[in-house]
Amino acid sequence: MALSTQPYKGTRDFYPDDMRIRKWMFTQLREVCEQFGYEEYDTPILEPIDLYTAKTSEEIVNEQTYTFEDRGGRRVVMRPEMTPSVSRLVAGKRQELGYPLRLYSIPNCFRYERPQRGRLREFWQLNADLFGVDGIEADIEVIQLADACMRAFGAKPEMFEIRINSRMAFEEMLEKYGFSPSLGPKILSLMDRMNKPEEFKKKLNTFEPAIQQRIGQFIESVQDRGAEFTETSAGKNMMVLLGQLQKMGIPVVVDPTIARGFEYYTDIVFEVFDTNPENNRSMFGGGRYDGLVGAFGVEPLPTVGFGMGDVTLLNFLSSNGLVPALAPATDAVVLLMGDSDEKAQAAIKELRTAGLNVAVDYTSRKLDKKLKAVDKAGIQFAVFIGPDELQSGQFNVKDMFSKAEDKVSLDRVLKFIKDFQQKK
Amino acid sequence: MALSTQPYKGTRDFYPDDMRIRKWMFTQLREVCEQFGYEEYDTPILEPIDLYTAKTSEEIVNEQTYTFEDRGGRRVVMRPEMTPSVSRLVAGKRQELGYPLRLYSIPNCFRYERPQRGRLREFWQLNADLFGVDGIEADIEVIQLADACMRAFGAKPEMFEIRINSRMAFEEMLEKYGFSPSLGPKILSLMDRMNKPEEFKKKLNTFEPAIQQRIGQFIESVQDRGAEFTETSAGKNMMVLLGQLQKMGIPVVVDPTIARGFEYYTDIVFEVFDTNPENNRSMFGGGRYDGLVGAFGVEPLPTVGFGMGDVTLLNFLSSNGLVPALAPATDAVVLLMGDSDEKAQAAIKELRTAGLNVAVDYTSRKLDKKLKAVDKAGIQFAVFIGPDELQSGQFNVKDMFSKAEDKVSLDRVLKFIKDFQQKK
Repeated sequence: MALSTQPYKGTRDFYPDDMRIRKWMFTQLREVCEQFGYEEYDTPILEPIDLYTAKTSEEIVNEQTYTFEDRGGRRVVMRPEMTPSVSRLVAGKRQELGYPLRLYSIPNCFRYERPQRGRLREFWQLNADLFGVDGIEADIEVIQLADACMRAFGAKPEMFEIRINSRMAFEEMLEKYGFSPSLGPKILSLMDRMNKPEEFKKKLNTFEPAIQQRIGQFIESVQDRGAEFTETSAGKNMMVLLGQLQKMGIPVVVDPTIARGFEYYTDIVFEVFDTNPENNRSMFGGGRYDGLVGAFGVEPLPTVGFGMGDVTLLNFLSSNGLVPALAPATDAVVLLMGDSDEKAQAAIKELRTAGLNVAVDYTSRKLDKKLKAVDKAGIQFAVFIGPDELQSGQFNVKDMFSKAEDKVSLDRVLKFIKDFQQKK
Repeated sequence: MALSTQPYKGTRDFYPDDMRIRKWMFTQLREVCEQFGYEEYDTPILEPIDLYTAKTSEEIVNEQTYTFEDRGGRRVVMRPEMTPSVSRLVAGKRQELGYPLRLYSIPNCFRYERPQRGRLREFWQLNADLFGVDGIEADIEVIQLADACMRAFGAKPEMFEIRINSRMAFEEMLEKYGFSPSLGPKILSLMDRMNKPEEFKKKLNTFEPAIQQRIGQFIESVQDRGAEFTETSAGKNMMVLLGQLQKMGIPVVVDPTIARGFEYYTDIVFEVFDTNPENNRSMFGGGRYDGLVGAFGVEPLPTVGFGMGDVTLLNFLSSNGLVPALAPATDAVVLLMGDSDEKAQAAIKELRTAGLNVAVDYTSRKLDKKLKAVDKAGIQFAVFIGPDELQSGQFNVKDMFSKAEDKVSLDRVLKFIKDFQQKK
């Protein structure tokens, strides 16, 4: 029986066309991160399970990880997110590294979820983290960086909105309303489901019946963004942050319902929303997590970071018409009119040395078939090389898009191509 | 208990220093592949197990794969190699794609092996494959490309040797010596162990005692590279290939013991050896596999390709002194002498807009601690920004390497940095 050509459920094949878009996206992200002084790193895809049991959200670890035992009996996980790994990395050289330390990476992550719009089982995620700054400047920079990433793609400030919240302010509120701090994560996780009424109700029912009503009231007071919330000590800090970001022209608002699914966040958290009414959803987010590096037995380190997934980003860019047409890396295909002998190879080498990316059609098909294949591959130029051309030193070059054609010497082929070439 | 900072056994963390080397290596490989008209693609890390059971080596599938059942009961594998995946990719759009089709990728692959020099459990591997050319030109190009990759790193032809062999010639020999073709893969796998006497003996003992001696004789005749082998019909073809590659100045020889571990190869195979007597070993290889795309129930497609692992490549480059010193992406660190106010942020923005990658030290540490951190991070320049500088418009710039220092206007900072900057 023939093997299936389908990729594994919830994952994607990247044909050259798709790969070009991914590379373009990642190149933009890399440039912005490096402009802000972030350096790229990477960690292995496999991690021991205890890296996640402590701090990642319960839902992800118990229901969504790819967890298995290796041939040596070690329980391993294909990383569902990067934050625990980068914390491990930094803790591993806690003393040797210089601070503030700025790191970024674009790893692929794995979650066993029901594939749907914006959610796949294998996705890439820009992670940018700033280590070693406990002041509000770090939160400002990371949100500024998230904004700069969006702008680099041509996103206008009216296309997205950054909603911020403070976990510390939330905890102050909890205390004020007489809830035990230990209930915090559970209430946060409940608030995280506010836009999904059924899930919310189900989750609310897991609380003791006696306090369900009080929790509802508490959530209402947090939600109204009133003085009670923003005048907690952490709330005031958040308002300063808000003011400074707004001065920079960043589209930011306070939203006390922003929870983020991860338990490691300690204060400011934020989520970036698509403002398109037809697609009004959280695209990505981040926040401050001052406790994670210290979990590796080293001196704790204040940290702020965010993660931006490629699937939601590409949806956003596509629906806003922000994905450009991208050409293949190959400039020209050489169509051989004779043998692939030493002279022909020397001519091909000359074109490559001049800086052109040149493929060669070595098949014995008829010319029209060869030209059709160049078209199919979306490559713009064809260069004809055969005994006559090698004899006369004049080579036919054809622009497959405009159909312009010329007979030029080898050293003019480059000029012809550069003159007619469309943006790569 | 504190979490461990160690990466999973047999895998690597890439701190910015390590990542810079990896990025440099991959950039060289990408440039060479694209010069030859190859386009980049990617496929998911997880694949269904039946993709490998058919054609990958038995040893890899049964002993070295990371195989497990997902939460939906599907048996999946973390790819141990890329060839089955790229064949699946091409088969999936067999009709839509233009040929000859040139594809490359630098995926990470996973094998459960005992970690040792040159072998890790997670490694990256350049894969370059040429689809749709059945003539010897395809074999020539792929070997030429492997050679060009080595040269791009500054490798001299005396540092490595490309050994080629023909599976078809081997099969002709098998027939001549009266062995059934079905014994072929087993004998190949035996020959693959010629340099490991103990493994060879163990493997030889799995043959029926009656034919063990005859197999030994057969292997000896194949091995002596005599007329008997090179004058088979496929052997003659290989000698033409050899001659053309030698004319191009590529260091290539015939070696009938080259087998390659994968069963999908159909004719010419090759391996690239490190010629250093202290490290004389196969670094990477490839060959022709005309049958794999057809295994997906589509029209078969002649294919030649190779895979080049990053671990052995980096060993080779390091031991030959071919790894350059690479600087961080960050050009300068701004040391704030006052608050991070609007004016300071405007100055930082101006530096970034001018094209510099600029980090900012937002800590409240003393100046000498800040300068020490810039040193630790290996960043070359420090720019001082404070109320006095913003008032006078003159900013101190310091080259941390040469200790050169100057007080210049903001728009001259770029020039100062470009003048003193060491190669990135």
